[in-house]
Amino acid sequence: MSGGLDSCVTAAISRQNYELCAIHANYGQRTEKRELAMFNAQADFFEVADRLVVDLNYFEAIGGSSLTDLTMEVPDQDLNSRNIPNTYVPFRNAHFLSIATSWAEVIGAERIFIGALWEDSSGYPDCTSEYYKAFNKLINIGTRPSTNIKVETPLIDLRKSQIIKKGVALGAPFELSWSCYRLEQPACGTCDSCALRLRAFAEANLIDPIAYEDRAHYAKV
Amino acid sequence: MSGGLDSCVTAAISRQNYELCAIHANYGQRTEKRELAMFNAQADFFEVADRLVVDLNYFEAIGGSSLTDLTMEVPDQDLNSRNIPNTYVPFRNAHFLSIATSWAEVIGAERIFIGALWEDSSGYPDCTSEYYKAFNKLINIGTRPSTNIKVETPLIDLRKSQIIKKGVALGAPFELSWSCYRLEQPACGTCDSCALRLRAFAEANLIDPIAYEDRAHYAKV
Repeated sequence: MSGGLDSCVTAAISRQNYELCAIHANYGQRTEKRELAMFNAQADFFEVADRLVVDLNYFEAIGGSSLTDLTMEVPDQDLNSRNIPNTYVPFRNAHFLSIATSWAEVIGAERIFIGALWEDSSGYPDCTSEYYKAFNKLINIGTRPSTNIKVETPLIDLRKSQIIKKGVALGAPFELSWSCYRLEQPACGTCDSCALRLRAFAEANLIDPIAYEDRAHYAKV
Repeated sequence: MSGGLDSCVTAAISRQNYELCAIHANYGQRTEKRELAMFNAQADFFEVADRLVVDLNYFEAIGGSSLTDLTMEVPDQDLNSRNIPNTYVPFRNAHFLSIATSWAEVIGAERIFIGALWEDSSGYPDCTSEYYKAFNKLINIGTRPSTNIKVETPLIDLRKSQIIKKGVALGAPFELSWSCYRLEQPACGTCDSCALRLRAFAEANLIDPIAYEDRAHYAKV
């Protein structure tokens, strides 16, 4: 759970059928403190007792992304572009899933839920259903024969506006979520992540409850 | 490079055709300090300038292995057993390979070498060629379309005695390697890792240059 909107809805979905344990990663991203605070607020809301917060400081040493390298600039987003933006953190989700798999194998958890989506995403390569299929194969081969863990991606084929509607139906606390890549409070409203979020709320005919510096730029769509 | 024998030989092999950058992980294993010292000694020997040392403290929080949980005991090894011993760190190699993939994608490296082997191994599930094949598929799907990284496992089908002979032929500095799971100096000689190492040196008709508390137990074979 990043503290963002997608993992918040994923938690709301998965808790219908499972007891939740939650993982959050600090990886030197610009909005690390805000995301951690929102993770804990959401985990409190969903009454998740068992939490694993990991510090992946090495992502700053690896660099190569404007999220973790403060000398690079987070761009204003062009939602029509099909290029992978510089906010891409190389191969990041494999780190999160590996941690989840190790923990799941130790505690005996059966499912790993991740709020990845492809439509209305930034086009990161580690957000396709093909990718999660390949990861499930890796888990199957690379854990004890008696271990049975599967990654599930309940949002992967949904538009972000559909995710928001589903979240509303399940009572997901969007006021406790954070998506902005640039700022910790208020959200900028113009980075890739804010743009996708604001456009989706507009599409769903709903008002995003969090504060923005520039809400009008993408919400007008 | 763990600081052990297999990654030492893998470095000796891969440097024949590639310029090396080296990764080492501290993950709360019992012999962390000794392994880090041997990693740096080997990297000095092989003249590797670019090194990434990562701290994966969260493995202690995850637990489930006698290498990272000090309340569990590292067993004397039974080389005839086919059970996965409690030294197995769940899904560990996926963490190492994910870090290597992220770094490789940023610096433009083409190959990731890992000294995994199956014969004469402890039977960990993340040490089979099938596993590395699945990881290569994950890399191919989960990185930028222009990225071309492949994991190579030059030792995977070798017996450990063959690995030692190959290392000797290439001048690998075994005196700068550490394999013991239990102790930092001297090696115990009776844990899983010492047992496999001593038996392999005996098979190769060579003397292991490092110090042992009990060398006779497995070297007699």
